[in-house]
Amino acid sequence: MLDRLRSAPPLVGCITNSVVTNFTANVLLALGAAPAMVDIIGEAGPFAATADGQLINVGTPTPEQRGASMDAAVAARRAGTPWVLDPVAVGTLVQRTALAHRLIAQRPTAVRGNASEIIALAGSGTGGRGVESADDVESALDAARSLAERFGPVVAVSGPVDAIVSSDRVVRVGGGSAMLTRVTGGGCALGAVLAAFLAAGRAVGVDALEAVAAAHVVYSAAAEIAERSSSGPGSFQPAFLDALASVDGAELERIPLS
Amino acid sequence: MLDRLRSAPPLVGCITNSVVTNFTANVLLALGAAPAMVDIIGEAGPFAATADGQLINVGTPTPEQRGASMDAAVAARRAGTPWVLDPVAVGTLVQRTALAHRLIAQRPTAVRGNASEIIALAGSGTGGRGVESADDVESALDAARSLAERFGPVVAVSGPVDAIVSSDRVVRVGGGSAMLTRVTGGGCALGAVLAAFLAAGRAVGVDALEAVAAAHVVYSAAAEIAERSSSGPGSFQPAFLDALASVDGAELERIPLS
Amino acid sequence: MLDRLRSAPPLVGCITNSVVTNFTANVLLALGAAPAMVDIIGEAGPFAATADGQLINVGTPTPEQRGASMDAAVAARRAGTPWVLDPVAVGTLVQRTALAHRLIAQRPTAVRGNASEIIALAGSGTGGRGVESADDVESALDAARSLAERFGPVVAVSGPVDAIVSSDRVVRVGGGSAMLTRVTGGGCALGAVLAAFLAAGRAVGVDALEAVAAAHVVYSAAAEIAERSSSGPGSFQPAFLDALASVDGAELERIPLS
Repeated sequence: MLDRLRSAPPLVGCITNSVVTNFTANVLLALGAAPAMVDIIGEAGPFAATADGQLINVGTPTPEQRGASMDAAVAARRAGTPWVLDPVAVGTLVQRTALAHRLIAQRPTAVRGNASEIIALAGSGTGGRGVESADDVESALDAARSLAERFGPVVAVSGPVDAIVSSDRVVRVGGGSAMLTRVTGGGCALGAVLAAFLAAGRAVGVDALEAVAAAHVVYSAAAEIAERSSSGPGSFQPAFLDALASVDGAELERIPLS
Repeated sequence: MLDRLRSAPPLVGCITNSVVTNFTANVLLALGAAPAMVDIIGEAGPFAATADGQLINVGTPTPEQRGASMDAAVAARRAGTPWVLDPVAVGTLVQRTALAHRLIAQRPTAVRGNASEIIALAGSGTGGRGVESADDVESALDAARSLAERFGPVVAVSGPVDAIVSSDRVVRVGGGSAMLTRVTGGGCALGAVLAAFLAAGRAVGVDALEAVAAAHVVYSAAAEIAERSSSGPGSFQPAFLDALASVDGAELERIPLS
Repeated sequence: MLDRLRSAPPLVGCITNSVVTNFTANVLLALGAAPAMVDIIGEAGPFAATADGQLINVGTPTPEQRGASMDAAVAARRAGTPWVLDPVAVGTLVQRTALAHRLIAQRPTAVRGNASEIIALAGSGTGGRGVESADDVESALDAARSLAERFGPVVAVSGPVDAIVSSDRVVRVGGGSAMLTRVTGGGCALGAVLAAFLAAGRAVGVDALEAVAAAHVVYSAAAEIAERSSSGPGSFQPAFLDALASVDGAELERIPLS
């Protein structure tokens, strides 16, 4: 899938929060995908219908973005564009929580969040206090499975060991680096990478759960490489982008997968 | 305070301009704090009431941000959340100038700006031409003291030597690096660091003026370390984030303080 | 012009897309210019009238930015502020395409885009699929010349070899680095550099076509230096900013110009 992605760059539409737009676009470019941040009413819907993949992240949901997000979700569902919902900090914050519930009803191909976000979205908790998780990955598995059964095929729960969950399977991806939690957008950009891999996976006949797992493996491998060649959260960021551009099959093999 | 901040990360709500959201979040994460950019109407107020500290920066004040900023300022004042006002480029630009005057009436715990901004906010000048200061720090001391007497305890004036001013004290912090003026957000992110230190200071019983001074010392020490290990404004930025994550007590001792 | 720019930093107003605001400001700061991102209704117009140069980029055109963009274009034209239009991804996306047509009627000093954008803006094509070009530079020369004749003096078409076109001249600038296409904002920040050079060029009596060509030469030289000292798209970015700050006349001489 990574070879396919690099040789035939999928066009990935992104509606994401203002904090991470730049890093998200750079992550997709480093990986080999073609990002386009189209997030206004009147453009987001038509673009999502023709893109190869779409990310909708609710991190800073202005009224304009809320409208554009719904348009994009509806258009992606109708056109069959694989799309990813990232329910950043849902729980007690009212606008994004209401929006995330409306969006998930449009049946995303994958949902990606930390444990607290997945639990809150499933209706069994109130979320973390800020954007960080107050729960661990394993405690979110029931919530993830419930979301997968009700709304869509795949739910990915990010943490020290990520869990990718469908109604009847769980794949765990280890490795990676805690440095990703010291760089803003470490999780948000992963959502965009999921959209890119869902597009590449579809092109080569891989199902959604395996495409999402592959995205996590690539992300974890790049993070490990970057941690080894950096000396803090600042130098980690360029090293991570370099690693996404150069990571190869041998390095992917080293990521624990179960 | 830095040890406290790293061991018990304060949750810092940020409403800031679109140019520096990413860098500001990364500065807070590198320092050890937990940033959350919650800047829309309906969420910003409730979030500011429960955050440990709050930044309100008026750098790109869309109507949505103006509403969210007022909600957050009112909520922070009522809840007792320490908060920082950064009056970016106030003076001749009408929307942000009117907004900054409404915000300061909600009595921020600290105001941070360059000399021209502080003079303009105090009503004794028209501000700089763009976002840079046309005045020097010492010429802004009367304006800073006037603001401190009328609206809140602490006003910080940034420059080659920073002045932190209350109604009856002035602390000067030297050191640092001119490279901070070659990186966008060098000043804006300092405002967020003030909010983090006001939160940490409160937790260990340090008053606002000393917490603000401590924030400046940490920022200046990290900038000096970064300048030594970088070769221009590009490499300075990751080096600065690395330094914020690793700076220690011995390095803080070297910053001139009077 | 570069010496002039560094010794008397032009104040460059920017209205640009949310993905690249940070990188654009850092590029201008590294170069030696003074950026100010003033992009709201009520401020953008007055600011454009007093700035030394202005960029208007339609990459993420919210309603607020659309209004601010028109205000800034009208004010820049009336005040004689040199300004640059960057028609990001115009063609099939309706809001930005309509906006770009309204903006170009205000006679920008320069238009900068990739081949597909220039062709679409001239009315002879539908643009690329995302933000990348589906056409090559030479195939856009007629469209560029047509725009230059109808609306303004200079149209710059970016690609492996850039073409800077007026009604009766074409200057080609080679060199540079493909890494600029792996960093988001590689093209968008060039638009801001054009605005800075148009301001510096005016101050030393250089015409618009030569100022735009000079901007491309500096950008290409810095990109070449950065590529030599980096190992991927992540490390390229800080190296590029460092190179913009240090590039000298001898390095500019090496860029192919015809």
